[in-house]
Parts: sequence; C-alpha cells; structure tokens
Amino acid sequence: MEVSNKYVVVKHHIQDAPEESDFEIKSRALILSVDSGSNDVIVKNLYISIDPYQINRMKSNDPSQTSISFAAPITPGEAIDGVAIGKVLVASDNGKFQKDDLVMGVFTWAEYSLVKEESIIKKLEPSEFPLTYHLGVLAYAGFFEVCKPQKGENVFVSAACGAVGNLVGQYAKLLGCYVVGCAGSQDKVTLLKDKLGFDDAFNYKEEKDLTSILARYFPNGIDVYFDNVGGEMLEAAVANMNTFGRVSICGVISQYTDAEKRSSPNMLNVVYNRINIRGFLAADFMNVFPDFIAKTSAYLQTGRLHVIEDVSSGVESIPSAFVGIFNGNNVGKKIVKVAEE
Amino acid sequence: MEVSNKYVVVKHHIQDAPEESDFEIKSRALILSVDSGSNDVIVKNLYISIDPYQINRMKSNDPSQTSISFAAPITPGEAIDGVAIGKVLVASDNGKFQKDDLVMGVFTWAEYSLVKEESIIKKLEPSEFPLTYHLGVLAYAGFFEVCKPQKGENVFVSAACGAVGNLVGQYAKLLGCYVVGCAGSQDKVTLLKDKLGFDDAFNYKEEKDLTSILARYFPNGIDVYFDNVGGEMLEAAVANMNTFGRVSICGVISQYTDAEKRSSPNMLNVVYNRINIRGFLAADFMNVFPDFIAKTSAYLQTGRLHVIEDVSSGVESIPSAFVGIFNGNNVGKKIVKVAEE
Repeated sequence: MEVSNKYVVVKHHIQDAPEESDFEIKSRALILSVDSGSNDVIVKNLYISIDPYQINRMKSNDPSQTSISFAAPITPGEAIDGVAIGKVLVASDNGKFQKDDLVMGVFTWAEYSLVKEESIIKKLEPSEFPLTYHLGVLAYAGFFEVCKPQKGENVFVSAACGAVGNLVGQYAKLLGCYVVGCAGSQDKVTLLKDKLGFDDAFNYKEEKDLTSILARYFPNGIDVYFDNVGGEMLEAAVANMNTFGRVSICGVISQYTDAEKRSSPNMLNVVYNRINIRGFLAADFMNVFPDFIAKTSAYLQTGRLHVIEDVSSGVESIPSAFVGIFNGNNVGKKIVKVAEE
Repeated sequence: MEVSNKYVVVKHHIQDAPEESDFEIKSRALILSVDSGSNDVIVKNLYISIDPYQINRMKSNDPSQTSISFAAPITPGEAIDGVAIGKVLVASDNGKFQKDDLVMGVFTWAEYSLVKEESIIKKLEPSEFPLTYHLGVLAYAGFFEVCKPQKGENVFVSAACGAVGNLVGQYAKLLGCYVVGCAGSQDKVTLLKDKLGFDDAFNYKEEKDLTSILARYFPNGIDVYFDNVGGEMLEAAVANMNTFGRVSICGVISQYTDAEKRSSPNMLNVVYNRINIRGFLAADFMNVFPDFIAKTSAYLQTGRLHVIEDVSSGVESIPSAFVGIFNGNNVGKKIVKVAEE
C-alpha cells in the first residue's frame, strides 16, 4: 500500500528571520512497509511542535557547532525533522513498538515519517492527559531540575507567553514563588497577569533600561531566571541576580535571527554573587517524565494550570506557523495539527 | 603600649590600570589594647595576599554591585582590607582566639590590623604546611568543588602562571587530566611545561584567533575551563567546550581595568552542549579546608606539587606588588611579607 506524503522543505539556507517564501511544500509517494530486520518504523504524525531553535539548523553555517542529531544542519530540499507526536502506522519487526502506539519523538515536518526506532523518545500511555501537553516536559524539567527553585524565591521568566515560559511561570506560582514575566505585547502582559496568575508582567518593547525595570520588579533581587531569549535581557537579569542565583538557558531567540546579538552578562556579578548559568535540553531529563505527567495531571484536573496552545492545521500551515513564532504571533505553545487522533 | 603602624591607602578612585602613584603609605599610632567586652582583636600581619579583584573596589562606581563585606568599596585615604595571614597580638576577652594564634582572615594592608573577630576566616594549626600555602585554598575549592573534574578529562586554565591557575593546573595533572594552560610570556609557557608538568601551554599574546588555537590544543574538546580572565578567552573556551562541560569563573582580570571588555560567550553553545558556567568565592568552601590541607601536604611532601610564590617585602612594597599583577609581572602567587613568622 502506498500513500502520498506531503512534507516541508527549505528552498535554500536562511540567514536571518525566516519568511514563508523560504519554504516549499512537496509531496512524495511513501510505501507503507518497512524492511524486514530493520529498525524502521512509519509514524502517522498527529501534532508537530514548532520550535524556534530550528532556524539555527537552516543556516548555511550552523553556529551551534553541535553533533547532536536533532540539531544537525538541515539540507535545503530535504525533509525537516523535529519533535512531534504521532501514531505508529507500521512497526518494525523487532517488537519494541506496536502498531497504533502513541509516540513522541523526532519525526518529520510531514504527514508521515519514516524513521528509525531510535527517533522515538517516548511511548505515550493512553490517558486523560491531552497528547499535546506532553510537549511541556521541557518547561517542567528546565524549571525544576535545572533551576532547583525553592518556595518563596523570586523567579523571572522571559518570553513568558511562549511555549515554555508560560508553563514555567505557572509551575513557579504553584510552587509558591514570586513570579514576574516579560512578553512583547500588552495583550500578552494582560494574559500573564489576569489568566496565568503571574504576580506581575511587563512589555519589554516599551522599556529602554531593562536593568532598571528588573530592579523595580524585583526589589529583593532575582533568585531564578528562566531564560528563553538571551541578549540584553540576560545581561539585565544577571545584573539583578541574588547570591547563589540560578540562570537556566533554555533558548536564545534574540540571537537566532541576528547572530551579532550576543549577550555580555557581567562576569563580575557572576563571581561575586556565585551565579550559576546552565544550558539544558529536555532530552537529558526523560527520567522525570513520570513526575511531570503526575504533577501536571493533578494541576490540570484541579484547574490550577492552564495550557495555552496555539494550534494551526495541516502540513501546509507549517511555514506560516514557523515564521510567526519569530514575530511573536503565537500565544503559548505553537503546534501544527496534522491529523485527527 | 603603642606602636607606629604603616598602612597603604589609595589617594583617589582608580578607573583603569593602577599606577604606583595612585597609592600612598601612611603611618598612625596604634595602641595595643582592645576595648573590654568588644570583639576587637589586633593582628600582627605576616603575609598579605595581593589579589587583582581589589582594583574593582577602588573604582568610583564599583561594578560588582555587591554587598559582600570584603568586596565593598574602598574609600580613598582609608585603610584597605584584604586577605592576609597574621598572628594574634591582642586577643579580645571573649576567648575565641588566643594571643599568638596564627590566623587567616580579612585584615589590613598594614603592619598591624585592628579588626573584629568575625574578620578571622580561620585559625591555622602550627604545622609543617608553610603558612603562605594556605592561600591556595581558592584554587583547590574552585577546581574540585566547582569544576567537579574526572580523571582523564581535558582541562584548560587561563592565567595559568598566576596565583590560582598554576595550582589548578597542577591539581588537574595530579588527578590524571590532560591540561593546557595559557599565559602572557614565553618564559611562563616554559615554566608551565617544563617545571609544572602541564601537557601543553601557549602564549595568548602571540595568538590572533583564540577559538582556533584552543581547537588545536583540544582536538577532543574541553571538559573543564578554569577561567581567571574572562573576555575573549572565555568566548573561545565556550566555543570549544564538550557536552556537559563546566566553566568555573574565578576571576575576570581582562575586565578589571577595562570595563568595556565584556565577554560574550555564545549561548547557543551553552544550550546545545549543556554547559554550566559558575562563579564562586573561596569563602563558600571553607568546609573543604581540611581536605585541602591533607591532600596538598601529601603532594608537597612527595615533591609532586610546586608552590610558586612571588614574594616582596614590607608594607612599602604593596603598591608596586599590586600594580605589577596587572602587568603580568608576577609568577605564581603574589605575596607581600610584612614580618617574620
């Protein structure tokens, strides 16, 4: 049996902010069978996670210089891989995954993904836990495992209406922290304060002196900074950190479309205040997945956690979805729904 | 009884590199008694540690914005405090320290120090362990406790002929690491390779592209970077770090005399390689003091560790000693000997 498989490619390398015209939707026949003895599986994609870091892979000279498979350069004209949730359509014959298993993994910006079993990060148990919410593990692991927050601490979150930031802020509130977020519009600020329960929030686009504004929102200093943006915001946060403050570097979106926009945090502050700055990937924390599901389920059931998703439909919507996250169009997690569960 | 007490002051705030003419030697009578019921003690200084961080305290606008007592701003015309080793000359009457106790603490750039008992960091046991070597605890704690090195890892040390760097490199070799250091002259490079047993060393002043030179010395990447300098060297090291690499920020000497010289490490590397960048102060690790003494004593007794000190004599020599460390004049730990033990 054979299906037609729509997928997304970049036409050429992208150096700055992406535009929809940089992308192309292609289609190719896919035979729904895998080689006997191989580890190949075919996944029917349900939800594709649209993540800003992918832009780095589209550059001609990937600045991350990494050997991490899912961060490897993307070749123009070829299928793009990324984190997604899908259903096993054709299993390999080694029996590790079965047909119809729900799985999260590194699949393809496409309707169907032909991948190695190793690309499956996790089998998802059928549960009350909505499928797309599994993508929140990055926020959970980054906040609890990297930031090691304590009740009562002062937490600052940038890109606080983004996929990761909004969850981090909510987890922080639920832990009993004082939480301030920044975002790029007044609507987002209102959402953070009125719906998501942040203690305060501000629109960074309206502020000139980020160090002063943070000093105003944090008269007692910042204990934890969850950084999604890098650049001047990271400098301002470091200048306001308390002794033994922790900075987790989840993303550097200010630098993704402008390689010159490096952050220069004052290392004197880092020494005197014994600040710990740490980068991380969700993949390192799959051991906390059960905790994440348990705690998050409980919060959802009692209505104490809001999951903010921004969902568009169909493979054709992937380019505009991706371009949009660099313009701040999305509110919450940007997801493309490819097929019905 | 009364003595004449020579001490050093800065005449005015210092913004850039210090010069000897910025300092003045003063003298004042000191009555050798302390108020009954107070915590005051009088210490006869034996050795004064000359440390680059002090320059930050001499600026009109201390950039470290810290509330740490020993890093607080220095007022022109007034006595300067700093880490030193001395002997209790007059004890307070609360009995915590006795006359003739050997002590390490935050004393004064002077012959005698009238300080609170709280300024004494540690009572030193009379032992075979040379007094000045106690100042090496910063290197020991920073390397073992902050960098958490493993045998076989690749370690890079900047300012490797400096007070801290030379010890870190030697501890790393003794642990079984591959160790490369950088320094500012060919003589220092020779010392590192021929006497201190570094696997390799280079003169950073002769290199244009620090990222490339580090890639050459570390074809398998850097696991641990012990940073004493900040600036471009920190950027180059971060670009060469391995996955889960650790950077300990001990000092930022490149920035001390040029506030514009900030470091802009690529945060994309920090994320993808899950790099941990951490500032520290020796004061946080006084719990490892016994380990430090035990391990270091053993190494010294078997001749496996060289203690490189650069000692000048007398309070009058403090200004030139201090100015010299910014010119790279010192080899190893810079100490001013104020009195005979």
